[in-house]
Amino acid sequence: MKIWEKGFSINDTIEKFTVGQDRDLDLQLAYFDLRASQAQANMLAKVGLISTEERAQLIAGLDELLAQVAAGTFRIEADFEDVHSKIEHYLTEKFGDAGKKIHTARSRNDQVLTAIQLFIKDYTQRIAAQVVALVAVLLQKAEAHQAVLLPGYTHFQAAMPSSFGLWFAAYAEHLLLDLALFEAAHTVADQNPLGSGAGFGSSFPIDREMTTRELGFGHVAVSAVGAQMLRGKTEKTLAFAIAGAAGTLGKLAYDLVLYNSQDLGFVTLPQEFTTGSSIMPHKKNPDVFELVRAHANRLQALPNDIMLATSNLPSGYHRDFQLLKELLFGPMMQFADLLDILLFALPEIKINSGVIEQAKYDPIFSVENINQLILAGVPFRDAYQQVGRAVQDGSYVPKREFQTTHLGSIHNPGLAEIAAKLEWWKERSPLLNSPVG
Amino acid sequence: MKIWEKGFSINDTIEKFTVGQDRDLDLQLAYFDLRASQAQANMLAKVGLISTEERAQLIAGLDELLAQVAAGTFRIEADFEDVHSKIEHYLTEKFGDAGKKIHTARSRNDQVLTAIQLFIKDYTQRIAAQVVALVAVLLQKAEAHQAVLLPGYTHFQAAMPSSFGLWFAAYAEHLLLDLALFEAAHTVADQNPLGSGAGFGSSFPIDREMTTRELGFGHVAVSAVGAQMLRGKTEKTLAFAIAGAAGTLGKLAYDLVLYNSQDLGFVTLPQEFTTGSSIMPHKKNPDVFELVRAHANRLQALPNDIMLATSNLPSGYHRDFQLLKELLFGPMMQFADLLDILLFALPEIKINSGVIEQAKYDPIFSVENINQLILAGVPFRDAYQQVGRAVQDGSYVPKREFQTTHLGSIHNPGLAEIAAKLEWWKERSPLLNSPVG
Amino acid sequence: MKIWEKGFSINDTIEKFTVGQDRDLDLQLAYFDLRASQAQANMLAKVGLISTEERAQLIAGLDELLAQVAAGTFRIEADFEDVHSKIEHYLTEKFGDAGKKIHTARSRNDQVLTAIQLFIKDYTQRIAAQVVALVAVLLQKAEAHQAVLLPGYTHFQAAMPSSFGLWFAAYAEHLLLDLALFEAAHTVADQNPLGSGAGFGSSFPIDREMTTRELGFGHVAVSAVGAQMLRGKTEKTLAFAIAGAAGTLGKLAYDLVLYNSQDLGFVTLPQEFTTGSSIMPHKKNPDVFELVRAHANRLQALPNDIMLATSNLPSGYHRDFQLLKELLFGPMMQFADLLDILLFALPEIKINSGVIEQAKYDPIFSVENINQLILAGVPFRDAYQQVGRAVQDGSYVPKREFQTTHLGSIHNPGLAEIAAKLEWWKERSPLLNSPVG
Amino acid sequence: MKIWEKGFSINDTIEKFTVGQDRDLDLQLAYFDLRASQAQANMLAKVGLISTEERAQLIAGLDELLAQVAAGTFRIEADFEDVHSKIEHYLTEKFGDAGKKIHTARSRNDQVLTAIQLFIKDYTQRIAAQVVALVAVLLQKAEAHQAVLLPGYTHFQAAMPSSFGLWFAAYAEHLLLDLALFEAAHTVADQNPLGSGAGFGSSFPIDREMTTRELGFGHVAVSAVGAQMLRGKTEKTLAFAIAGAAGTLGKLAYDLVLYNSQDLGFVTLPQEFTTGSSIMPHKKNPDVFELVRAHANRLQALPNDIMLATSNLPSGYHRDFQLLKELLFGPMMQFADLLDILLFALPEIKINSGVIEQAKYDPIFSVENINQLILAGVPFRDAYQQVGRAVQDGSYVPKREFQTTHLGSIHNPGLAEIAAKLEWWKERSPLLNSPVG
Repeated sequence: MKIWEKGFSINDTIEKFTVGQDRDLDLQLAYFDLRASQAQANMLAKVGLISTEERAQLIAGLDELLAQVAAGTFRIEADFEDVHSKIEHYLTEKFGDAGKKIHTARSRNDQVLTAIQLFIKDYTQRIAAQVVALVAVLLQKAEAHQAVLLPGYTHFQAAMPSSFGLWFAAYAEHLLLDLALFEAAHTVADQNPLGSGAGFGSSFPIDREMTTRELGFGHVAVSAVGAQMLRGKTEKTLAFAIAGAAGTLGKLAYDLVLYNSQDLGFVTLPQEFTTGSSIMPHKKNPDVFELVRAHANRLQALPNDIMLATSNLPSGYHRDFQLLKELLFGPMMQFADLLDILLFALPEIKINSGVIEQAKYDPIFSVENINQLILAGVPFRDAYQQVGRAVQDGSYVPKREFQTTHLGSIHNPGLAEIAAKLEWWKERSPLLNSPVG
Repeated sequence: MKIWEKGFSINDTIEKFTVGQDRDLDLQLAYFDLRASQAQANMLAKVGLISTEERAQLIAGLDELLAQVAAGTFRIEADFEDVHSKIEHYLTEKFGDAGKKIHTARSRNDQVLTAIQLFIKDYTQRIAAQVVALVAVLLQKAEAHQAVLLPGYTHFQAAMPSSFGLWFAAYAEHLLLDLALFEAAHTVADQNPLGSGAGFGSSFPIDREMTTRELGFGHVAVSAVGAQMLRGKTEKTLAFAIAGAAGTLGKLAYDLVLYNSQDLGFVTLPQEFTTGSSIMPHKKNPDVFELVRAHANRLQALPNDIMLATSNLPSGYHRDFQLLKELLFGPMMQFADLLDILLFALPEIKINSGVIEQAKYDPIFSVENINQLILAGVPFRDAYQQVGRAVQDGSYVPKREFQTTHLGSIHNPGLAEIAAKLEWWKERSPLLNSPVG
Repeated sequence: MKIWEKGFSINDTIEKFTVGQDRDLDLQLAYFDLRASQAQANMLAKVGLISTEERAQLIAGLDELLAQVAAGTFRIEADFEDVHSKIEHYLTEKFGDAGKKIHTARSRNDQVLTAIQLFIKDYTQRIAAQVVALVAVLLQKAEAHQAVLLPGYTHFQAAMPSSFGLWFAAYAEHLLLDLALFEAAHTVADQNPLGSGAGFGSSFPIDREMTTRELGFGHVAVSAVGAQMLRGKTEKTLAFAIAGAAGTLGKLAYDLVLYNSQDLGFVTLPQEFTTGSSIMPHKKNPDVFELVRAHANRLQALPNDIMLATSNLPSGYHRDFQLLKELLFGPMMQFADLLDILLFALPEIKINSGVIEQAKYDPIFSVENINQLILAGVPFRDAYQQVGRAVQDGSYVPKREFQTTHLGSIHNPGLAEIAAKLEWWKERSPLLNSPVG
Repeated sequence: MKIWEKGFSINDTIEKFTVGQDRDLDLQLAYFDLRASQAQANMLAKVGLISTEERAQLIAGLDELLAQVAAGTFRIEADFEDVHSKIEHYLTEKFGDAGKKIHTARSRNDQVLTAIQLFIKDYTQRIAAQVVALVAVLLQKAEAHQAVLLPGYTHFQAAMPSSFGLWFAAYAEHLLLDLALFEAAHTVADQNPLGSGAGFGSSFPIDREMTTRELGFGHVAVSAVGAQMLRGKTEKTLAFAIAGAAGTLGKLAYDLVLYNSQDLGFVTLPQEFTTGSSIMPHKKNPDVFELVRAHANRLQALPNDIMLATSNLPSGYHRDFQLLKELLFGPMMQFADLLDILLFALPEIKINSGVIEQAKYDPIFSVENINQLILAGVPFRDAYQQVGRAVQDGSYVPKREFQTTHLGSIHNPGLAEIAAKLEWWKERSPLLNSPVG
């Protein structure tokens, strides 16, 4: 059954092509579509478009399907092109004309849009909770290993002393910054399109503020034309957020791939986290983190996938938008998996101390030698050239003892200040305060 | 003169390649680098790393250069590889050793980072102000033309009655949503990296909170490692914001290209806004809006440019990041130009009324026929099939009179509610409240 | 069983993450991996690394699995991480030590590479055959409808008379040009990496020219380091080819979406090819072609997906490359589907004649008026301005009769010359001459 | 003066926006536009559309401008919107009506297209010559250093013995493969659009084969509609070629960045090729190769820039295409610069021998230990596990002496076979055989 059935059959090849992966993907939307349908039923009853009895039937039928979703038994059979057809059919089979009335004053367009808005809003909140958990792990590791020095690298060359305190803290701080894009995605997803119909509204006397409140949306997507334009925009904004945070995860994974190598040896990954080579028995390859890196990089391509597939179209619905689910849902789950893998793996990583004591790292203390000269009154450029000459002519003696005091430096990594940034977010962002659905 | 001069000359070809477009691009950063250098000088004096007299000299010298910037006479001569070398050279020529001391406890890395953070933060505020101005224009046009109907299109086909009120309001509402990504970019740019040195801090007893306050940053980028990791991240976040809003501008331009065509004729562009054909005298092509669309689409590629050029690198500085300025600065200006062009062009567009009265638009009133049946008690699916049959067999009579009541519909476009969303932003966002520098 | 099993078990979560979708994707590679394994067995026997009897066993075992592939019964059970483990296990179960010897002088790296090279080479040949079939359909339609005029549009505005002959021929000619990128992909896939081991060769006295001949490769990928660098490069080159041709298909689909609209009405799609609206019974939406367009646009993102996921890595294998299969195989099949859909749909499209006779298309004949003046001796610019003034002041009378003679014009569309281009390809390209495997 | 001048002035702001960077960019096209105009004049005379005397005037005038181009004195003054206006104005000033006639039977559309086709075709030939030169340098280095071993890395970990012979040869072989995409770009650029007018041909009796021969095009772009569709396609195909080869250059540069590091030290870059740190005097950063890598990565974004800016448009000209020049020309020059830099830098790189003798590289010989066991009759998997256990329990003794024989291995790198691939290209490709213009 297709909602738009007009009496003539469509060619099967074409139908298969046009339905695409909708049946699978729509399982993610079922919960949200059912909840939005209940809000719609309540509103239709309140404004008098359906009777109290019809409302009760619809709510009960939708509750049955919600129970199936909760139990993991909800299915979209091959007879249905999508979740929306399935639900309407269920209600109509059960309640006849009352079932059909769930579609009063709404179009499949605003129905799909509403389910996607709710789904993405919920997703941003779940991800934010995972990010906060990962920040906590990183700050614990920073605290535990803050005294362990490692050589800081720039240009793939050892440059200056650094510490695991600074390193772990850096990723904690960046993940907190990454919340800013999820906050933006949450704001865009927090607009209620229900009631905008096919993008031009309707003459039914519906109450859009009521469904907005009932569904927990922060705002009405007011203009019906603008509500329709959310299709693609919410997805794109979420894609930006995922790409942004994926960049952070990818860099973290890349560092670990290098730090685990025999040349550096700053960390040791448990055997369970490595895989071997089919011809080189000495290898313990950091495949997990290479794959985290690769997936993270691939997720950075997500915004472009969405923009190429759906940009450069005028306003109003185009069937092209159907691809958005297929493009977005898989990567959404993949990104959540990356956070899970890191939450699972990071606590197990062994930090190796003493690495920096190797003689090959002598030159990285040269900046300290310069700083001492400066504190003794030599202008920076002169001190720099004096130490530079010593490094060149071999007379250089490293100054391995030093003490830093400023915020964000080795001996004052500012972990409390970073933790306070989390509180700043909690105070201001609905993303972190909202109860996860 | 190059800051890192070590006494041997670098091959000229190589120097030209490595300096790239820095001298031109850095003119954008001069103001911010000078202001940050003044904050640095004040802080160095306060913690005792330079004398009060040295501070006074440095501030005065930087004020002279700031005056040049204000007067448009500031130059980066070919002797200097970038703005930073130029400034240091100016101070050193003038004040000798005191001039050299401006570089105490800072590296070129955090110096560049700080200037870029300030520049991008300022840019987001300026753009937000332009966006708000464009929203005002759109709401005025929505108000002025709210009673003018036009056929709403989906799938490039006339679908249902719409109005210029809904259409203009849609873009106003979307531009307000686009602020969410600029808010995110502002948050990332609002972190002060000054004092993080080459990404690992230093042993100087500097006061990073003092420069944070003096430069108006909301937060310290605490971990020195994390501060360095802002390079690329702030740019990427801004690129997302530009790409997001560019999507809105591109869609608006695309609509106008179509609406201006002879086939639709919903709007008329003033002759001054059109260009002709070299062989077709009847054409009045909407080139301005085609170019807005093309530039908007090109700006959607900006995040990918930045990610491909600088992603998949481990933490720590790499020279690759130099490309960020070249990749970002031009498109930043281009995006501001698009907003300017639209602020200039939109008020001049002539809205054509009466278009919808053409007989070819009869079928788009069929939804109204259905709705009447529904209000008379016919279930939606039955009403749909009944009207569908009438359209098929030619017996259909359009219902051109209708009245909508719900929020966001033709006769209740909710312009006040959309204007209220602007107030919501003003209340919560430092992006809109901050004084533009 | 994992090839690299070293005696300690890997955490299940990690294993699931690292195996990814390999089991499903590898089904595509089974045929090619089996054929390459047979070539390897023959070569090992020839150079004396296995006995004649061992060779016979291996060939027979591989033949059994090839029969399973042909019958559609080949499976990669959950015990195996990929197709390669499965095959080796099958041979070892059956033949003991002889089975193990199939892995002599090869690594999983060159084994995977070889299978992918063969798979992609075969794919380019199959696609080329489909493209040639589609060109034939387009040329038939061009021939059949060459006399039907339609208004040619530029800037979304009617510009000049055109014809379905020119329009269909344009796409035929462009698809032939699109073969150039598939030719490039074929060239890159036609290099044999077998024997390059893990990217550094081996001390076994193998004969790489022998496997090259037996597998039908045109060239040895000589340097073992370079052979390994094919990973990602072949995929990227194929992605370029798919993106290139997808651009042509997307534009064709876009034209049909517009030509089918009520405003233009140049073509009529059979009812079976359209879908309806859930609330607008008059709509017959061209969803099939909108989805072709969207998929085509999405396929244009494929090169970027591959480049972001696997670029910016130094030479040598990295586990990141595993993602290539997941990124590429689905879109490869999707692209083949698009060609199938068009082969199926294009012959069914109804061309509407007489459209151009509408009065609204009068002005598009103005270029003819100008040309007549020119042929009468008036310089172009003067003729242009004279006709331009007539259009402006309403005195313009269209010249609807005209005759073109030049190659590629309405009355001389050059279909034979375009067909000759196909012959040019057939003469020079191994892509079109190779027997499809 | 604008070609399409209709008597009313266009707003200056708008004109500045629409002209964009055309005046600068068009200098690249001047030579090709002048040559194409001469071919046009010759053809117009031959078919009788202009007189012999007019032809002589036009040829002479165009020769004068060609001489200016050769002398570097050709300018496009601010009065002209592009190179085409400038040239026509020059001819008209000089010859009156005869000058105006150069525009007979051509539109600005096919004029621009023709110049771009010639420009890109010429560019692919110049680049191919540079690539061939770089291949020669790489093969010389491979020959000179073929006996120098280095540890081959996979997963950023030392894996097996490799050699500079294999490593240099790998890049030579890959650059030859990269020609395949330039060959494709050349094929697309080798189609002559001249005479296709605004994309729909004309009724003038022009001879398109004549201009095709005279301009050295291999083919006529037959269908006028298809000829216009080359706009964007040729640029996209070239972008693929640049992105493909840039991937090779980027990987080469990345290897050198790592090989130059203190941890590896496989190569030494001359001091002139390194830059220093503003605070770390011991650093000799490989900035040149980091910038080559970054530019190479950025060039991989080029196809996407072009596709996002100009895809998803129906057939026929749109002003959006104007952006193509701005998007493509800069990167084209940048890519040529990268080849120049490498041609200049590679011969200067110092190869360090003996690196592999360090004890830390003992384990990479384990594959040799395995191979010896296999040659002694132990099945691969058993030999692998036996050596693996030795590595685990510390009893492993490396086997540093070994000899390889197969093609593409350390002691038989196959440099002659790779050089033969260049001959294969020369025999078949017009890209390499064509005289560079």
